[in-house]
This record gives sequence, C-alpha cells and structure tokens, in this order.
Amino acid sequence: MKKRLNIGLVGLGCVGSAVAKILQENQEIIKDRAGVGIGIKKAVVRDVKKHKGYPFEISNDLESLIEDEEIDIVVELMGGVEAPYLLAKKTLAKQKAFVTANKAMLAYHRYELEQTAKNTPIGFEASVCGGIPIIKALKDGLSANHILSFKGILNGTSNYILSQMFKNQASFKDALKDAQHLGYAELNPEFDIKGIDAAHKLLILASLAYGIDAKLEEILIEGIEKIEPDDMEFAKEFGYSIKLLGIAKKHPDCIELRVHPSMIKNECMLSKVDGVMNAISVIGDKVGETLYYGAGAGGEPTASAVISDIIEIARKKSSLMLGFETPQKLPLKPKEEIQCAYYARLLVSDEKGVFSQISAILAQNDISLNNVLQKEILHSNKAKILFSTHTTNEKSMLNALKELENLQSVLDTPKMIRLEN
Amino acid sequence: MKKRLNIGLVGLGCVGSAVAKILQENQEIIKDRAGVGIGIKKAVVRDVKKHKGYPFEISNDLESLIEDEEIDIVVELMGGVEAPYLLAKKTLAKQKAFVTANKAMLAYHRYELEQTAKNTPIGFEASVCGGIPIIKALKDGLSANHILSFKGILNGTSNYILSQMFKNQASFKDALKDAQHLGYAELNPEFDIKGIDAAHKLLILASLAYGIDAKLEEILIEGIEKIEPDDMEFAKEFGYSIKLLGIAKKHPDCIELRVHPSMIKNECMLSKVDGVMNAISVIGDKVGETLYYGAGAGGEPTASAVISDIIEIARKKSSLMLGFETPQKLPLKPKEEIQCAYYARLLVSDEKGVFSQISAILAQNDISLNNVLQKEILHSNKAKILFSTHTTNEKSMLNALKELENLQSVLDTPKMIRLEN
Repeated sequence: MKKRLNIGLVGLGCVGSAVAKILQENQEIIKDRAGVGIGIKKAVVRDVKKHKGYPFEISNDLESLIEDEEIDIVVELMGGVEAPYLLAKKTLAKQKAFVTANKAMLAYHRYELEQTAKNTPIGFEASVCGGIPIIKALKDGLSANHILSFKGILNGTSNYILSQMFKNQASFKDALKDAQHLGYAELNPEFDIKGIDAAHKLLILASLAYGIDAKLEEILIEGIEKIEPDDMEFAKEFGYSIKLLGIAKKHPDCIELRVHPSMIKNECMLSKVDGVMNAISVIGDKVGETLYYGAGAGGEPTASAVISDIIEIARKKSSLMLGFETPQKLPLKPKEEIQCAYYARLLVSDEKGVFSQISAILAQNDISLNNVLQKEILHSNKAKILFSTHTTNEKSMLNALKELENLQSVLDTPKMIRLEN
Repeated sequence: MKKRLNIGLVGLGCVGSAVAKILQENQEIIKDRAGVGIGIKKAVVRDVKKHKGYPFEISNDLESLIEDEEIDIVVELMGGVEAPYLLAKKTLAKQKAFVTANKAMLAYHRYELEQTAKNTPIGFEASVCGGIPIIKALKDGLSANHILSFKGILNGTSNYILSQMFKNQASFKDALKDAQHLGYAELNPEFDIKGIDAAHKLLILASLAYGIDAKLEEILIEGIEKIEPDDMEFAKEFGYSIKLLGIAKKHPDCIELRVHPSMIKNECMLSKVDGVMNAISVIGDKVGETLYYGAGAGGEPTASAVISDIIEIARKKSSLMLGFETPQKLPLKPKEEIQCAYYARLLVSDEKGVFSQISAILAQNDISLNNVLQKEILHSNKAKILFSTHTTNEKSMLNALKELENLQSVLDTPKMIRLEN
C-alpha cells in the first residue's frame, strides 16, 4: 500500500474548506483508521485569489487536476448538475476514485455513473443527510433485508421552519424569514421549501433500497409553503406534529415514492426531530424498524461523511477489527472522579430540623441542590425526601450519602441515581 | 470470485435458526448485494436429534467443520466465553473468516482475537444492539471523527422493565415478572438487570471509539434492581425518565466508562426509546450528535446483523455503488393510487347545512371522517372546518376536494395534508 493517499479537491466552499480542516486536525485518527496517511494535493476553485493560507496548491485548472497522476481520489464539492457529472466521467475514465456530496447530480445521473464506474469506487455518503451514515446503513448494515419502507425528515431548512411554526405559532412567512436570518435557508429557498431537495435524496435512497431508477418528474412532490398556523393547532389538538417527509414503500408489484408535509403521531420517534436535524426511519423485513438521526447539513457534518468515504476507499483491502491500527494508550477515568448531577431518595423521620441537617451535609460536600420533593408517609412519622443536585463528583456524592446514612433521622440506606444530560 | 460462499454455522438456537431462514428467504437480494450466492454447508449443534428439516448437514462434530476446506466463513452463535474463543482461534488459524454475535466473549477476548486475526476478517456487528448497525457506524460512518462521547440504551430487557415501571407505576418485581412472562427476560435475569450485558457492549463500543482495552472489573456497573416507584414519580414530576445507560466520555487524558440507571431529560431523544428497543447517541467532534435506534435483540434482528457481516466479507473486493448487481424492474406506484389518511382545512360560510353537504361529498367518495374541529371566525359569518379522515386513496381524496371546492358554501381552495403513521 502507498504511504500517502492524495486527494484532488474541487470546490473550497463551506464543505470543501471543512474537508481540508478535518483532514488536517484529525490526521492521526484518520491515518489510524485508513491504514494510510491522507492529504490534499491540489484544490481547484473558480477564483484562486479568494482562497489563501492552505497548505496545498490551489488552481483554477480542472483538467490538470484530473490529469495529475499522483492524485488518487477526486472529491467533488462544486455543486451544479452537468459540470460535476462531466468531472465524474473524466475522473472515472482515469480510474481514479470519485467522492461527491452532490445530491442533485446523483438524482439525475446516478445510474449512468454506476455504469461508467464499473470497479472504480464512488463514494456519496455526504449526498444524503450530511453526517448521518444512512447510505452505509442501507448498503451495508441492512444488506440482509428487503426494505419494506422508509420515511425521513430529509431537509433541515423546512424542518426548522415547521418546528418554529409548531412551537412558536409563527406563520410560514415569519418562520422562513427567521430561517434566512439564521443562515438555515438560502435567499432563494425554493429547493428546500418546495420539497425538491428532499426528493433528490429520496431518489438516491430508493435506488439503494430498491434498485429503482425513478426520476424527479415522476414522483409526487409537495412543499410546505401552504401550511398555516391552523394546521399546527389541529395537529397539537390531536397529538400530531407536521413534518416534511420523504416516503418510500415497497408494494408487491411497485414502489411508492413521495415527498410532502405529513402529520405524524407524537409517539413516533420522527416527531421528536426538531430544528435543522434530519432523521430516517427504515423498516426492514427482518430487522424491523431502525432509525438514524443527526445533522443533515453544515460544513463539518457533511465533510465528516465525505472523509468517511475517503477512508473506506483507502482501506478497501484491509479490515481493522477494532478500528485502530495502533492501540490507544488512554487510561480509564477512575470511578470516583466521575462528574455528574445526582438524584437521591432518603427515608427520614418526619421531625423538625431534618432537612437542615441534610442540606448541611450536602453543602459541606460541595453539593448544591436542584429540585426537592418531600413526601409525608401517611399514618407514620416518616417522610421521603427526594432531591436532585447540580453537577458534582462521584467521590463527594458517595461521601455525602455515607454521612447522610449515619444521621439518626435517616432511616434507611439512601438510594442514588445519576443524571445524564 | 467463487460461485458460492459456504457458511459453517455453530449453534441453531433463536439466532442461528433465523440466520438459516433469512439466508433462504432473502437469498436473491443477498446474492445481489454480496455479488455471490451464500449458503450454509453445515451446522454444528449439541444434540443433532433436536434439529430437523434443514436443507444442510447437521452434525455435532465441531472439528470437522473447522477442517472442512469448502467452508469459507464460520458463524459462531453458540454462546459462552472460552469455548467460542477457542473456536475463533482455530477458525482464524485456518484463515477462514469468523462472524460472531457473542458480546461476552468479545468483552474478554477482543484484543487477543484482533491480534490472532491479522488480515482474516472478523465480523461482530450482531454483538452490540442486535439489528442496529452501530459497529459499522463507528468503524465506517463516523471514521473521520474523534468520538467525544456516546451513551446508549444497550439492554432491551432492563429498558422494558423501566418502561413498565414508568408507564404503569409497576414495582420492579412486577415489571420483571411481566418481562419474564413475555419472554423478554430469562429465568435468571442477572446479566440483564445488573448491567453486565450492557457493560459487555459498552466495552466493545469503547474499543471501536477509543481503542481502549478496558476490562469489565475496572468500570462502574450498577443495575436497575433498586429503583422504586417513588423514583419514577420524581422523574415524571421534573420532566425526566429513567433509563439504564452505558456511558462513555473522552477526556483529555482518560476515558470514562460506566453503566448505571440514569435520569435523562424528556427532550432527549433517548427518553423516547421504550420497551425492548435500544438506541445509542454518539457525539463526534466534527459530525455532532448522531443517533441509532432499533431492535437490540431477537432472532431475526440479530441474524440481520450477522448476515450483513457475511455480505461485507463476501464483497470485500467489489463495491456496488447503488447496492444491486442487477437493476430491479419494479415500476413506480402511480401518484393517484397512493393510499393514506388525510387532513383537510376548509374555509366555509357559517350557515346551516354546510357540514352535511361536506360529509355527503366525503361519503360519496368513500371517505370516512376521523377527527373534526369547527372554528367560527369572529365578526364574520365564516368558519373553518378542519378534519382528518381514515385511510382512503389519493384519487378519491383529490376528487372529494375538487367537489368541495365547487360548493357555494366553500369559500377558498381546500388545503390538504397527508397523515403518515
């Protein structure tokens, strides 16, 4: 195997610059997991002057990047449809691996690309739901299953808008403005709010689940722009929330694909997915439901997916059982140094001054109270004191509990549960 | 590549028989995804007489299975610690791939196995959380990240008991009996309720995330057996639920690992994971939070993970971009044949008989109402009618909406949202 794998990067925007940053910052762990060092040899951008301070060559000559014999993998983060498709074809013709985050291009050209590629690897984990490894889940994790159906919140912008409308009774217009103000929505948000972006992703996932070559124009796509506060009110009243879903279902003789706003029951895990987060629920005939949740967009989450593809291509021939080439040397944190908040339950005699004794012991151990509930036990002179604390360390808490147990007014061994946020 | 990959299966219990069943039932999709046919050549069990009707040889001679030159992959589903470890070593010495669902064995011998294996593949996706592809997520999907922390509901039995205690105010004892009655808990449930099983899984995941060779005896492990209804009441009162969590955190100079009951805020996705389901939330330094949810045990979900490992081993050298060797021929379902329930919003003039006109149109289109909300608009003689329907088909619904729009008393184009359960 080569000592170093060279990347040719096309595009240094939000995702491209994050790829460069992570390959630098996490180079050790990446080398461990890939079994080989990985670095960018050259990046191609439209305007060279705009991109300075990178430790690799920056050029505007795409052809020279494709022709460069030392470049092993071309990473396409330029956007668009036809230009990146042409780049992909030229790259694959040179038998260089190709990695892309470009869902629009794949929505149109994924099958032509697969045919062109033959045995040359193509990575596209970043094209659907950014940092969530849903492509790998469908290709690898669930590979023994017929996928009966899947449905997902595939677009963060529209999910942010719907979450705002649900929580703050905002109108669609105001929620959209808010999203634009925060940088979650583009000035021209059509692709996001009309369901086009979600449909691109649905088509890619449907190819993996069903091998179906569906086109954007053939499927039902509705956006969220007609949803009004009344709809949210109805949803709340009857235990629903409203989400823009991409939905795929396998029937005996056909595949159903659609993108539209959906009311989903509150018990459903997807209903808890708020703001710009994405999630996909997949039903396999053998595994049942599995669900994948995470950041669907943003520079670093998307770059994380791009680099996972690069690492997979790099280690194609090796297979690390436990993930690291070299064993790590970090020690375990001692139990008594664990830091967290705590809940405790005490059985006490219901007499004057008990609570002040308890709180004095906590204070001496540098523990401050958060919530307290005192419950008298009827027909006895006993009470239960239930309380939670702010963050402290295990040693202090265990010490405090021991001291509490020694109090005459505490009638039983105190019980404790750690809080985890 | 070979025409067929031969499996030697050790153990035909709940998971082993499901592996045999799925390899048979889903053989076409498995062949497509593996690029090669996969079948069981021989199974080894303790008592041959108990297992009949399988289309492969059944024996009680483990050595003959290891020695069989035609067997490419040994799948260990026998349970225990030392016997399966010995089997693994003998298998790897023959350079046959080894696949296991055995978390207890890996909790003790994972590093020795990695050393023994060298370049021979070992699959153990099924050892942690059954059908959830969390091993692949850590090894592949998140490979560009330092894992800052992860926490998970890693044991379905204890999660079922805690869910029952939370929802039905059951005592621990009653909830455990209930779980045993339903087959979710073993007659000897110690491993599950005392956190040992969760700790086995935590150790495996920690090796993948941090490369740390921690031992069971070194980490904090507490079970759920001391939790009482009072604790659940406190949790409810302050917006928490109680879950048995496996928790891992990376500190600058050490790794923190612990298993214990935890109070977690209701807003946290993990708090929604009820019954026997499992879920793991992972924080990567670049990708942020991702979460994985699914069935953590059971024959078919666990077998689904076992077979995903077999497929990955089979296709090591090929890489299918879109998952299928041969394109699938299924057509798209026509939009108007989609079936679901609907919600609609009408603006109507607030006069007698309007609702009966509306419901007549729905009935004529074979649509039955579910929930209805009528809202008068103050200082106007208008009202809004919001309703949801039972399942019908898109064509009927679109037709009904068109007819509704033509009513004189309907003042605006009706708006519709599909329901998704």
